[in-house]
Amino acid sequence: MKNLNENIIACISPPGVGAVGLIRISGNKAISITNNHFKGKNLENQNSHTIHFGYLIDSNDRIVDEVLISIFKAPNSYTKENTVEISCHGAPYIVQKIISVFQHAGIRLAKPGEFTQRAFLNGRFDLTQAEAVADLIAAETESQQTNAIKQLRGGFSSELQLLRTELIHFASLIELELDFSEEDVEFADRKDLKNLIGKLLFSINGMLESFKFGNVVKNGITTVLAGRPNAGKSTLLNTLLNEERAIVSEIAGTTRDVIEEKIVIDGLLFRLIDTAGIREATDIIEKIGVKKTYEQIANASILLYIFDINTLTISEIIEDLEKLKRKDLKIVLIANKTDLLSKENIDLFKVNLQKLILDDEISFLAISALNKNNIAELKKQLVDLSMGGKNMQDQTIITNSRHYESLLFSKNALQNALSGLDLNNTGDLLALEIRHALHSLGEITGEITNNDLLNNIFSKFCIGK
Amino acid sequence: MKNLNENIIACISPPGVGAVGLIRISGNKAISITNNHFKGKNLENQNSHTIHFGYLIDSNDRIVDEVLISIFKAPNSYTKENTVEISCHGAPYIVQKIISVFQHAGIRLAKPGEFTQRAFLNGRFDLTQAEAVADLIAAETESQQTNAIKQLRGGFSSELQLLRTELIHFASLIELELDFSEEDVEFADRKDLKNLIGKLLFSINGMLESFKFGNVVKNGITTVLAGRPNAGKSTLLNTLLNEERAIVSEIAGTTRDVIEEKIVIDGLLFRLIDTAGIREATDIIEKIGVKKTYEQIANASILLYIFDINTLTISEIIEDLEKLKRKDLKIVLIANKTDLLSKENIDLFKVNLQKLILDDEISFLAISALNKNNIAELKKQLVDLSMGGKNMQDQTIITNSRHYESLLFSKNALQNALSGLDLNNTGDLLALEIRHALHSLGEITGEITNNDLLNNIFSKFCIGK
Repeated sequence: MKNLNENIIACISPPGVGAVGLIRISGNKAISITNNHFKGKNLENQNSHTIHFGYLIDSNDRIVDEVLISIFKAPNSYTKENTVEISCHGAPYIVQKIISVFQHAGIRLAKPGEFTQRAFLNGRFDLTQAEAVADLIAAETESQQTNAIKQLRGGFSSELQLLRTELIHFASLIELELDFSEEDVEFADRKDLKNLIGKLLFSINGMLESFKFGNVVKNGITTVLAGRPNAGKSTLLNTLLNEERAIVSEIAGTTRDVIEEKIVIDGLLFRLIDTAGIREATDIIEKIGVKKTYEQIANASILLYIFDINTLTISEIIEDLEKLKRKDLKIVLIANKTDLLSKENIDLFKVNLQKLILDDEISFLAISALNKNNIAELKKQLVDLSMGGKNMQDQTIITNSRHYESLLFSKNALQNALSGLDLNNTGDLLALEIRHALHSLGEITGEITNNDLLNNIFSKFCIGK
Repeated sequence: MKNLNENIIACISPPGVGAVGLIRISGNKAISITNNHFKGKNLENQNSHTIHFGYLIDSNDRIVDEVLISIFKAPNSYTKENTVEISCHGAPYIVQKIISVFQHAGIRLAKPGEFTQRAFLNGRFDLTQAEAVADLIAAETESQQTNAIKQLRGGFSSELQLLRTELIHFASLIELELDFSEEDVEFADRKDLKNLIGKLLFSINGMLESFKFGNVVKNGITTVLAGRPNAGKSTLLNTLLNEERAIVSEIAGTTRDVIEEKIVIDGLLFRLIDTAGIREATDIIEKIGVKKTYEQIANASILLYIFDINTLTISEIIEDLEKLKRKDLKIVLIANKTDLLSKENIDLFKVNLQKLILDDEISFLAISALNKNNIAELKKQLVDLSMGGKNMQDQTIITNSRHYESLLFSKNALQNALSGLDLNNTGDLLALEIRHALHSLGEITGEITNNDLLNNIFSKFCIGK
């Protein structure tokens, strides 16, 4: 466990040049040490949540910058410790210089996530809320932000807390029985316990089911765009990119062979994989590209198969689909260049397709990428396919695989307890399973934790959070 | 002139992902409009310089983020207007979302430099101080930061102000004479005026002279590293880069043909241009590289010519220098690989060079790049050559070419006035020249200004400042 008595410092604004840079110092000496390097009012006499203008000076009384100092007094700060935030001119040189002034004064650099870790250790919030902070900072879409805010406000924790409290009540009754085991009494009503476990399993199952959608929210929906040359893939991609907010990828090391574009539709993130070259491969390098494309399809949730309705036959489409289709892959057959055909002809085409190939996983849509016909319908289908037709608005959604695993453990333990009840198992066996379930639930909120888990969680945060 | 009644908003922290994002709103409705989108205390009832925790909500009462709101009430803010700063989670998505909430509420995006422009227009500081803000944000070295802070604190302005006030006094006396021109009186003592103009010219000349150094502080010293293959150029460059703080260049579009490394020695920025290839050019592309190298030398202040003392003859060195030397280019002849020679041999070499080529512009230094011998002396020479042997510690230093030009105009006008005095010119001619001088001085601090000038200055600022 890191030493909570140390004072820590970090730049909390993004790196780079800006109008203003923001530096945070947390620890019991945050205010007094800052005061030693401040020319202005006496910061130690100021109220919490107040802002003070003055000059930041180094140990030689040299002015480093004009600054605004915000004072937060324990426990009314993010970390629940004394905290100072220094707002300076946003030159990396100046931010660095100010940090080094405080390093000389004995304040050490904060590790990634250390401010949030302190907030957790000092009881500001539970572990799911701390994790929501990282999710919020990484949010790129409305659905990610909505979900992270909900989790940050404790929505997830309070639902868990309710379940856990009821279970603890039963666990203590059963453990009480064990103390009186000679006397063969039952303090815990088995029928009530069974009801509670049933209710618990119902909730946990709901949460577990939400994970698939949660994963979609957090990581986006991988959508592959495929089709023969001249089917209109690029035109469709450009139409989608122009109409919706495209996110410029900042991930280093993106494979050049696969082009991924991120767009947001209805607040959901779609990762559009362009498979330019899927059939054009002539030399070795391009063939490697094609291999990667098939790998991408293997990981995709949705395949948009686009074809020129005027030139491709149904048997050619079926031939392509045989190679592309896969269990759990939803496919939209997109008939492009429909502006040259009558509605009757399109409907006829669809009817013929319907007999041969359309099913629950494979649907049909006629568009014109060039004239932007039916693009709105395509976007609606993309959103519907991702949501599985569900409205997740008011439900608790699991986005974190750590939470998912713990819920799974706790579900197993509860199912064991349920079978135990049916088998009239003894109280000690029952208590063991219930304790397992409680432990797993406690791990989610951080009531039960260990250093490795905490380090693992917080090391993924950015510096300054 | 931009409408000061409008409320403006911008992200003031650097772009990108960080722990915290900072947004500023300025204008008389800043606090009331923020209050409409804040779930927490009533912000309109709060004191200036206080911080408030709560939720930022959009027009549908949907929570966008947990935020801290800082309140600054006019005139006690950066812009001297009502100002709100919103500290949110540092996701670009969230920053953008919050800004769009306020755009919907009728607040418009701030233009680059607009907060600082308002600060200037509302009388917070003069134009040189506003310009110092931009310099401070761009600061990469201690000398840049020191100079910008000095200018921000009004060092430059107050020196100018003193001169200008005295001159205004004389101007008014002379203009009074004009009112009584029939009566041939002299209110302004010509001898006193001559003294004052002399004093003014002395100050202005000092400032003008400081510009050369100011330019060095602001833009760095272009230093070219040249020499034949295997002279040890790369080793020397690496030694300098490893020993001193190297700045990674973030400027887009840097020419690939010329490699520039930035290092800081004694707080001064040196732009080291590596001329790898100056003699190795074999094909067209490399020859273009060589041409660029010569262009770089044409713009450089210092040339480090490095040679292997064991293999190059003095006549070969002279041959190279004939091609490289240029008026105002200071050259250091660096004899490398001296660890293989005795001190006597090195001294002899230097004496022979001295006779033929060394002078005020060309000096000699023996080093070993590999063993890091005499590197400290090289760095000292670099700093001395840049400073011209002057100590600029306490002097006002001009770094801005706009200031330089205005000072030059004002110098010319004062010199004309001085000649006019010697020629016993009439008061009206004298008054004209003095008014010219006053005008130029007033342009520097912004007492005399126009829209074009202001737009030109503030459009160079970054967004959010």
